[in-house]
Amino acid sequence: MHSIPQYQEFIANYIKSQQLLKEPRNLYEPIDYIIGLAGKRIRPVLTLMAAEVFDADYKKALPAAMAVEVFHNFSLVHDDIMDDAPLRRGNETVHEKWNLNTGILSGDAMLILAYQYFEQYEPEVFKSLAKLFSKTALEVCEGQQWDVDFENRDDVTIPEYLKMIEYKTAVLVAAAMKMGAIISKTSEENGNAVYNFGLNLGIAFQLQDDYLDAFGNPETFGKQVGGDIIENKKTYLYLKATEFADKEHKEQLLHLYSVQPVDNTEKINSIKQIFDETGASEATQKAIKEYTFKAFETLEKMHVLDEKKMVLKAFGENLMGRKV
Amino acid sequence: MHSIPQYQEFIANYIKSQQLLKEPRNLYEPIDYIIGLAGKRIRPVLTLMAAEVFDADYKKALPAAMAVEVFHNFSLVHDDIMDDAPLRRGNETVHEKWNLNTGILSGDAMLILAYQYFEQYEPEVFKSLAKLFSKTALEVCEGQQWDVDFENRDDVTIPEYLKMIEYKTAVLVAAAMKMGAIISKTSEENGNAVYNFGLNLGIAFQLQDDYLDAFGNPETFGKQVGGDIIENKKTYLYLKATEFADKEHKEQLLHLYSVQPVDNTEKINSIKQIFDETGASEATQKAIKEYTFKAFETLEKMHVLDEKKMVLKAFGENLMGRKV
Repeated sequence: MHSIPQYQEFIANYIKSQQLLKEPRNLYEPIDYIIGLAGKRIRPVLTLMAAEVFDADYKKALPAAMAVEVFHNFSLVHDDIMDDAPLRRGNETVHEKWNLNTGILSGDAMLILAYQYFEQYEPEVFKSLAKLFSKTALEVCEGQQWDVDFENRDDVTIPEYLKMIEYKTAVLVAAAMKMGAIISKTSEENGNAVYNFGLNLGIAFQLQDDYLDAFGNPETFGKQVGGDIIENKKTYLYLKATEFADKEHKEQLLHLYSVQPVDNTEKINSIKQIFDETGASEATQKAIKEYTFKAFETLEKMHVLDEKKMVLKAFGENLMGRKV
Repeated sequence: MHSIPQYQEFIANYIKSQQLLKEPRNLYEPIDYIIGLAGKRIRPVLTLMAAEVFDADYKKALPAAMAVEVFHNFSLVHDDIMDDAPLRRGNETVHEKWNLNTGILSGDAMLILAYQYFEQYEPEVFKSLAKLFSKTALEVCEGQQWDVDFENRDDVTIPEYLKMIEYKTAVLVAAAMKMGAIISKTSEENGNAVYNFGLNLGIAFQLQDDYLDAFGNPETFGKQVGGDIIENKKTYLYLKATEFADKEHKEQLLHLYSVQPVDNTEKINSIKQIFDETGASEATQKAIKEYTFKAFETLEKMHVLDEKKMVLKAFGENLMGRKV
């Protein structure tokens, strides 16, 4: 097995070896640009890691890892249009740097390019990968649609919210790992176990993101702390708070979520206090622990050496242990 | 073999049998809407026809035909956003009826849904179909990008223009037919022959569309006659006219293509006259005949009964014989 930084380097080198810049320039330049804005490459790292957990050479998993990364970047480009976001990883978004049409068309091309990376596998493996990929990609679209729909609803339930983050975020993490399993030709049981490991860890990670968005350390969180509150986003914290709140707290929360003050400091502090006082903060931390625990439980259903399980567990603990 | 109206009915029934309306409603309703705005379904008809030409049951080709139709509708939804088009087949476009974000996201989902229709084939056939589909879909994106690029260029050459319409329009017609061949498991030679038949016929069809846009009968053409001229589109007619024009004609043409009068009648008539006088009209009709002839020539390389070749030839003659 290799370390995370090693996997990241394998992926960086593989990306560099790809000739992404082709004609017509105006189609491929934005693709090369967004893929070059290196994130942490967590998803493709997980594909390589899963392949090695099931005793395959990580090199065999590189094209599938690339497909996952290209798809992830496709979804960022189209989501940034929908959210009208000016920045991505501290740089201009594609539709800002070029224009709307370029964002749409380059995004479309990336979705197709992702499928093409699977062509390097033989027909049986190709079909398994492409099938899982299509199912996952469609779920990501559905998750994005739920997220958009929820903005205009005030009756979103906790199960609905969990389904949304599962589709929008967790299924791609899960699928990235299962692809490693498919390539290694391990048992279906192992493939499903690693899928569920990724799925639960992905949900835990997104819940933690909700939590840290309010309670993270501004100096290390990377995003603007309180961003969700400023945008009146109905996160897990918010939904739990409305569930637990007494009449007074509820009215105060609904009022605060209806205003857009110039200076948000007071609004953020008041809402964080409500999250604490209603028990929403505690409930969110509890949910994070439960999903992380569920992820670790799936390791028991995995038929591999204990040292391999420990690698996955260590990755999960590392990911969830971030105290930013 | 069946007749075109029969194939159209098979496709209409297959579409009706699909459960396109799922949750989240706001994602799938626009998909159901645009696919329901029945066009002539030429591309999926060609998939079924090609399957029968190579002795397969048309029923076996229905999922692939559906994939082609769903992809075609995906490209319409995203192209209509890029062209800011209010109407499609006489009805509101998706981004007009809903909004921009719905147009983007529902389009994305359709591209993925198209791939899923191939899952009904065994791995070898699945891989052949998906591979041809990805190559074609990427070419369609590239063709669309060239088309966008050409708007801001005044040095577009005839070979570049032909490449653009080949990618934007003809490759999907060609691929639709080759999919029928792949499903029938006929020889690669036959598959390539029918691909080239579709490719050349597709180019001829698009050139004819350019011609009829200027010289078609307003009562039967379906689109606004002179639409390309009003939009100053650099069509084959225009490019040939600038190639053949003397100094005076060229200045007149460039001037007319730089103005946007309220009443376009005079502009359209003047430009049509230039197209005639420079010999551009004749050259366009000649090119249409040449590409149609090239399509029919490929039939000679096809190893099927003559009666099957006659079906393809009759389809081509029928398509190109439209005197609208």
